[in-house]
Amino acid sequence: MASPVLRMQLARRTTHGNTASSIDLKQQLHPSMDSAQSVRIDVERIDLLRAALERAGLDLLICGSATDVLLLSGYWPIMSTSVAVMTRGGKVHLLVPEDEADLASETSAAEITAYKPESLSKLTNPVESLRQPLGALLRAAGESRANVGIRRWNSVQPSAYVVSNDFHESLQALIIEIDASAKVCAADDLLESQKSVKTAAELLQMERAATIASNGFAVAQESIAVGRTEAEVASEIQAAFDRTSDIHGAHRSYGYFFCMSGPNSATAAAAYARTRQRKIEDGDLVMIHANTCADGFWTDITRTYTAGFDVQRHREMRSSIMEARAAALKLIAPHVAASAVDHGARSVMEAHDFGSAFKHATGHGVGYAAANANALPRIHPLSPDMLAAGMTFNVEPAAYFDGYGGMRHCDVVAVTNNGVKVLTDF
Amino acid sequence: MASPVLRMQLARRTTHGNTASSIDLKQQLHPSMDSAQSVRIDVERIDLLRAALERAGLDLLICGSATDVLLLSGYWPIMSTSVAVMTRGGKVHLLVPEDEADLASETSAAEITAYKPESLSKLTNPVESLRQPLGALLRAAGESRANVGIRRWNSVQPSAYVVSNDFHESLQALIIEIDASAKVCAADDLLESQKSVKTAAELLQMERAATIASNGFAVAQESIAVGRTEAEVASEIQAAFDRTSDIHGAHRSYGYFFCMSGPNSATAAAAYARTRQRKIEDGDLVMIHANTCADGFWTDITRTYTAGFDVQRHREMRSSIMEARAAALKLIAPHVAASAVDHGARSVMEAHDFGSAFKHATGHGVGYAAANANALPRIHPLSPDMLAAGMTFNVEPAAYFDGYGGMRHCDVVAVTNNGVKVLTDF
Repeated sequence: MASPVLRMQLARRTTHGNTASSIDLKQQLHPSMDSAQSVRIDVERIDLLRAALERAGLDLLICGSATDVLLLSGYWPIMSTSVAVMTRGGKVHLLVPEDEADLASETSAAEITAYKPESLSKLTNPVESLRQPLGALLRAAGESRANVGIRRWNSVQPSAYVVSNDFHESLQALIIEIDASAKVCAADDLLESQKSVKTAAELLQMERAATIASNGFAVAQESIAVGRTEAEVASEIQAAFDRTSDIHGAHRSYGYFFCMSGPNSATAAAAYARTRQRKIEDGDLVMIHANTCADGFWTDITRTYTAGFDVQRHREMRSSIMEARAAALKLIAPHVAASAVDHGARSVMEAHDFGSAFKHATGHGVGYAAANANALPRIHPLSPDMLAAGMTFNVEPAAYFDGYGGMRHCDVVAVTNNGVKVLTDF
Repeated sequence: MASPVLRMQLARRTTHGNTASSIDLKQQLHPSMDSAQSVRIDVERIDLLRAALERAGLDLLICGSATDVLLLSGYWPIMSTSVAVMTRGGKVHLLVPEDEADLASETSAAEITAYKPESLSKLTNPVESLRQPLGALLRAAGESRANVGIRRWNSVQPSAYVVSNDFHESLQALIIEIDASAKVCAADDLLESQKSVKTAAELLQMERAATIASNGFAVAQESIAVGRTEAEVASEIQAAFDRTSDIHGAHRSYGYFFCMSGPNSATAAAAYARTRQRKIEDGDLVMIHANTCADGFWTDITRTYTAGFDVQRHREMRSSIMEARAAALKLIAPHVAASAVDHGARSVMEAHDFGSAFKHATGHGVGYAAANANALPRIHPLSPDMLAAGMTFNVEPAAYFDGYGGMRHCDVVAVTNNGVKVLTDF
């Protein structure tokens, strides 16, 4: 991380820089930076992307969606007003609003151009501010901008801030305005496929996100007590997380903890979690669900506890779920069908008469999104996906009973060269 | 709010409902609901929208972005997979994933159709799940679907959950696939203009969001102490908010509190706030910034404190800022130019030699977004916007000194028939 003084210099240079020319902030900083602190290019990712562009016949990839920018550049934008441009040759440029320039330089080895959004002397919308710097960048790309890949059809974005920008079609329109001869095509599949496999550097970020989460879960058991509300429990765990999350090597860390008790825990089969004001009762199932993040890489974690007295039914649910988890983990390896992993877990649940209570897929891709049922690989009965080394996903066997409660044990795992590594082994 | 039993019935009906036919959940619920608990149609909003569709020559308005769905239906989607359809006649249909159906019925008087997203027997992406129910809905709209308005160019979305879906162009493509004769056009300006003026019902929601925020700010002064980290202070305030936010009449409430101290408070001139691990020192400026939300309606609030001993410079900054605030408030009324309000505040800051330290506009629209510099009305030196009764925006005079600190006092206000009402008067 740059020293405070360097940060200020960076900010000043950025503020007065010419937004039309490409400013390599990294280069400007480098002479006075400790070499150990500079951001290394993720060569593995660049090679993967370069091969994908080659296969797709693309000359350029231009991304404005936050997680796509993260994939290309290593920087996860705060306000979603950044744009990453990758050439077929593997060079990555990053356009960021000037108030994110120092943050971007902390995690991205891309060539960074800081641009000035709206100011007191200019009243513009987000894409208009990009016209000049993106135009300069694309003109510099010269002949190699015939086929341009962009995100067109759909994406799921984790929350990076209270609000985020969405370019919709305006970024595409700007690209065409800058170069009417550019052939713009959808790179959605290319991007989703790239996101499914993590590089070594990206896996390290996911491990940080998992470590961060453990600080919250460390106080979960003691926070849960009969008579307390879900909101009280969740806010106590959240506070324990917030106090400690910034000290594990990530530049930016976020996390959301949810508490669902008794009948409310049965509703956790939904696509979302929700903490309510319900008071925890003796013998309740109490589910703590978390999504935590290190510099844009997310986890999806659930643990379920029993409030007050031990309950026989919970023991049966727990042993079945842990057996299903073990069955899934045992199957995970490269070249295994994702559907086989789902089948492995589901068979165990069915054998214990929990088949119909296990209402959702065994898992889905995790990392670039916190929770996205469509992220690859889909560990789903009908999934056509094949596992590959570097893939990361959750394994979340569960049993839900409407009106009674739900239990889920959700881990994040990575496919290794010959098996699996559980990133959330706590 | 529906009783727990009703909620369960609702969930069950939704689960087994035919996703292709339009199910009026409201109607199903109504017989056994206390009439005081049913959601009333916001006639004022419907009339405003109907007039706007008429002026724009639109037959239908189809929205998938979360705040656009809120504007049309009163429901703020969690996962951004809901779609609202409004006819020129003023009828609103709402397509929601089945696990959000009960939430939607709590705040929306629209005709709700619950659809089934991905399940164990179906592996689909978000827009494919909409093909059947949206097709049925549009075919039922018959001849009146020639001109269809949609969001095309840009939007700023507040965070509703850890992740959110973004349809990008897929919703538009689906509409055209369903009806190749439909003429789809951009309704961005119509939507932004509609969002700038709040109805009485929407103002009530904004007041709730402000009341909720006061629970956090009530503990801010005592949380701030020399030697504590920004993260400790922010998490304590956040926890106080989280414990109490659900008890003020909103079905869903959210909030984010940030703490920036000393030199970090000077960086708050940026588009975003950021809590760090810095320890608060004696004589620091300590800025507490919050965005809180009641059922989709947001606030943008900042208060600045002094840690430890009283500082003369802070007193000068504070008195200038409060004088600038008063000057702005005095000017606010219908038919006043937004730029005149900015000028009123800015002149005071300049008279006290704080002109160059007041680095941003005096305010921007607040409500449908937490923080969006482009939301109408823009209280900016170059703004062409005129104030109108029902407009809500923030008034945020501030002074930032790089390397030293920043002070901002940010309120949310509403334009009344003859002046202004401060919604955050605490």
